[in-house]
Amino acid sequence: MADSNLIRSLQNIVGKEHVLTDKEDLICYSYDSTFNSCLPGVVVIPGTTEEVSRIMSLASKAAVPVIPRGGGTNICGASVPARGGIVVAMHRFNRIIEIDTANLCAVVEPGVITAEFQRRVEELGLFFPPDPQALNMSTLGGNVATNAGGPRGFKYGVTRDYVLGLKMVLPDGRVLKVGGKTVKNVTGYDLTKLLTGSEGTLGIFTEIIFRLIPLPEAKRTLMAIFDDILDAARAVSATIAARIIPTTLEYMDREAMRLIEASRPCGLPVNSAAAILVEVDGSESDVPVQIKKVEEVCRKEGAREIRVAASEEEANQIWTARRAAFSSMARSAPTLIVEDVTVPRSMLPDMVKKIAEITGKYRIKVAILGHTGDGNMHPIILTDERDKNEMQRVKQAIDEMFRAALEMGGTLSGEHGIGLDKVKYMEWELGATGVDIMRRMKRALDPGGIMNPGKVLPPEDN
Amino acid sequence: MADSNLIRSLQNIVGKEHVLTDKEDLICYSYDSTFNSCLPGVVVIPGTTEEVSRIMSLASKAAVPVIPRGGGTNICGASVPARGGIVVAMHRFNRIIEIDTANLCAVVEPGVITAEFQRRVEELGLFFPPDPQALNMSTLGGNVATNAGGPRGFKYGVTRDYVLGLKMVLPDGRVLKVGGKTVKNVTGYDLTKLLTGSEGTLGIFTEIIFRLIPLPEAKRTLMAIFDDILDAARAVSATIAARIIPTTLEYMDREAMRLIEASRPCGLPVNSAAAILVEVDGSESDVPVQIKKVEEVCRKEGAREIRVAASEEEANQIWTARRAAFSSMARSAPTLIVEDVTVPRSMLPDMVKKIAEITGKYRIKVAILGHTGDGNMHPIILTDERDKNEMQRVKQAIDEMFRAALEMGGTLSGEHGIGLDKVKYMEWELGATGVDIMRRMKRALDPGGIMNPGKVLPPEDN
Repeated sequence: MADSNLIRSLQNIVGKEHVLTDKEDLICYSYDSTFNSCLPGVVVIPGTTEEVSRIMSLASKAAVPVIPRGGGTNICGASVPARGGIVVAMHRFNRIIEIDTANLCAVVEPGVITAEFQRRVEELGLFFPPDPQALNMSTLGGNVATNAGGPRGFKYGVTRDYVLGLKMVLPDGRVLKVGGKTVKNVTGYDLTKLLTGSEGTLGIFTEIIFRLIPLPEAKRTLMAIFDDILDAARAVSATIAARIIPTTLEYMDREAMRLIEASRPCGLPVNSAAAILVEVDGSESDVPVQIKKVEEVCRKEGAREIRVAASEEEANQIWTARRAAFSSMARSAPTLIVEDVTVPRSMLPDMVKKIAEITGKYRIKVAILGHTGDGNMHPIILTDERDKNEMQRVKQAIDEMFRAALEMGGTLSGEHGIGLDKVKYMEWELGATGVDIMRRMKRALDPGGIMNPGKVLPPEDN
Repeated sequence: MADSNLIRSLQNIVGKEHVLTDKEDLICYSYDSTFNSCLPGVVVIPGTTEEVSRIMSLASKAAVPVIPRGGGTNICGASVPARGGIVVAMHRFNRIIEIDTANLCAVVEPGVITAEFQRRVEELGLFFPPDPQALNMSTLGGNVATNAGGPRGFKYGVTRDYVLGLKMVLPDGRVLKVGGKTVKNVTGYDLTKLLTGSEGTLGIFTEIIFRLIPLPEAKRTLMAIFDDILDAARAVSATIAARIIPTTLEYMDREAMRLIEASRPCGLPVNSAAAILVEVDGSESDVPVQIKKVEEVCRKEGAREIRVAASEEEANQIWTARRAAFSSMARSAPTLIVEDVTVPRSMLPDMVKKIAEITGKYRIKVAILGHTGDGNMHPIILTDERDKNEMQRVKQAIDEMFRAALEMGGTLSGEHGIGLDKVKYMEWELGATGVDIMRRMKRALDPGGIMNPGKVLPPEDN
């Protein structure tokens, strides 16, 4: 537990009821959706930017780590207080301050739940596309901190593409405001985009301005079923090569479908090798044209069967099952490791093949889901962390997957982030120069190194 | 002129024929499209990343300023060698290395001319939307350095939205590679976006990876003519409020149309108060639907007349005239100052009114063009820099315009950048904290301060 002077000072800032120090409370803030965990010294729950600013000044002076926390749904260890310190839980920042329909933007606090915000926006005929899997629990601040993606990223881009402005408390307590309500802005360096995806290592957001777009008139879902995983992967590339940009282009292999069906039956073709799930959207007149084109491409690439969802309910049922995939799978193995490798889209068939090779070689069980339109694959490793021998093989397999992805011109992380888990791979992708420049960015904003230490950047003595 | 040792060293790196020192040569690299100008010490024209790296190492050791130069079409002074030094002209980096149709991206060198790249991409059924006015002269590297916009920014975003990866030589000569061919990438801080728009103050790009999108099937142009400038401004907001996102939404006032017609007649309605020029694009089935909706909105907001271009030729004629607006106007006044203020879209009518007030008060002549869908206005001041008294009034008027834009929640620059000309306003928008953080970014990447000094950031002793 943290030092009693520090706790008293925190209580003075936010009030006694917003400072947690009991062990059972601290445990609740010790983990995220990975299997990392570490107890914080104290949890503080501020309600205003001013309070966050005072907390940060205090932490800076005391040189105590600060770990910002949203929904805790992170899957790379970014929200785990790896070196103890003060967890700043942002759930009291839960107001949608303004949905500005004239300027197609919204001003929100970071603690708002993603799905709640999307509902409110859609009621007004507007659209906030980023749809991370955990959207019923994840917060908007967390989405910005991790630059969250999701299936719709293929057509609509990721969270970063919707952040217009930020209010952020710096580690020294100063309040930085960047960007604004205008879509065009070239006034100096683009700090807004730099801070987006910085995983809480540069400061704490207290206000966000998001760009919104008009809600598409219509959408439709199609599932193409394949007897060969490579045909399915090729159908993804072929769709894009045919200049069709569906909203989502999701890949599921047999193992993934089998596990989803076991827990939440929705008619997935478990006797096939793989399926791709396609949603198109647009104007009423255009959606049928798009569906037809996708159908043609999939048939040409060898789809055994194509099912177009008859109604929105049918489509929703499939998407809900897809979204619940990780929790469905959680029942089938003691430990689930959700990986996140991304390759250029054309390398998808190669990557699918490579994953099969690697997991075969190391005798580990894997199910594959992926936002494959983006080349973004999620191999899900079903394992048991208590089995040291298997975990060793899992580790080696993951290393090999990343090496393969990077060799194919891909990246370490498409949308899950670096956190604790991928720090060791950073230099593989960025080289010594890239890591050095990122370290300089970190030092420029957080000279004391108090913000979420241990995340994103490998330790200097490495 | 630069020191003879330095010149010899540069000649050793790139060959004698690629180092310019004659005064008549230096003059060609002394200016951009503003009325700033300053002679460089020497101009060097490298051909490889390796050569750029050696030039930078040399300049770092000698503490000599380095000014990267593309097409020199900048309109805020960013390409002017304000403190002398080495101009690094990038026109030998003129290769389109790859257009990757499977992954919808392209790898290019920074010296490629924007329009040439667009032509090549469109031949393959792909699309690179950013369309700065100077696209027949501007280079892709310059577009990235300034985060160039253009009319299509409204629907398709600006250059930043298309930069996937960069190879950049750092001031110390190291080569930094960031991003890649994947659209999703959250591996560490987003340096790609930070470097985009940094106006040559952080390093020199030697390779760029751009995202491409499918070329829309169809497009059509419509002009709505108004007798009241406020009706025209309101029609812009009303279009967006009606959830229509045309490709472009351009505003021209009577003065702007009169000047364009005088030089390049294309039938603009010079007897009206203002016109808006709308292009919509999309699928064959959707374009007529969009045109009809825009027409309805414009009529409702009081348009006197609506003209839909009958053919692509007719549309092209109008767009060519619009694109040539600045050169047309250049004939009508000795000095032309193209300003670039951006406000949230809903504030457009207020800003149009405010500009009229301010220019009336200071008795200066102004024509207004604007990418108004983005709230991005270009008031063009027609003046004579030899008239000191008028120039004083112009200066005051510009100051007032920026104050007004910022008060309306706008920004100093939508797409032209900061360069030399807007440095003095930076703190108005960003505050002391914002400027301090940008200075730290600059110091982190360019500790010696050799890259394009005097640009973007106000001097420290201010």
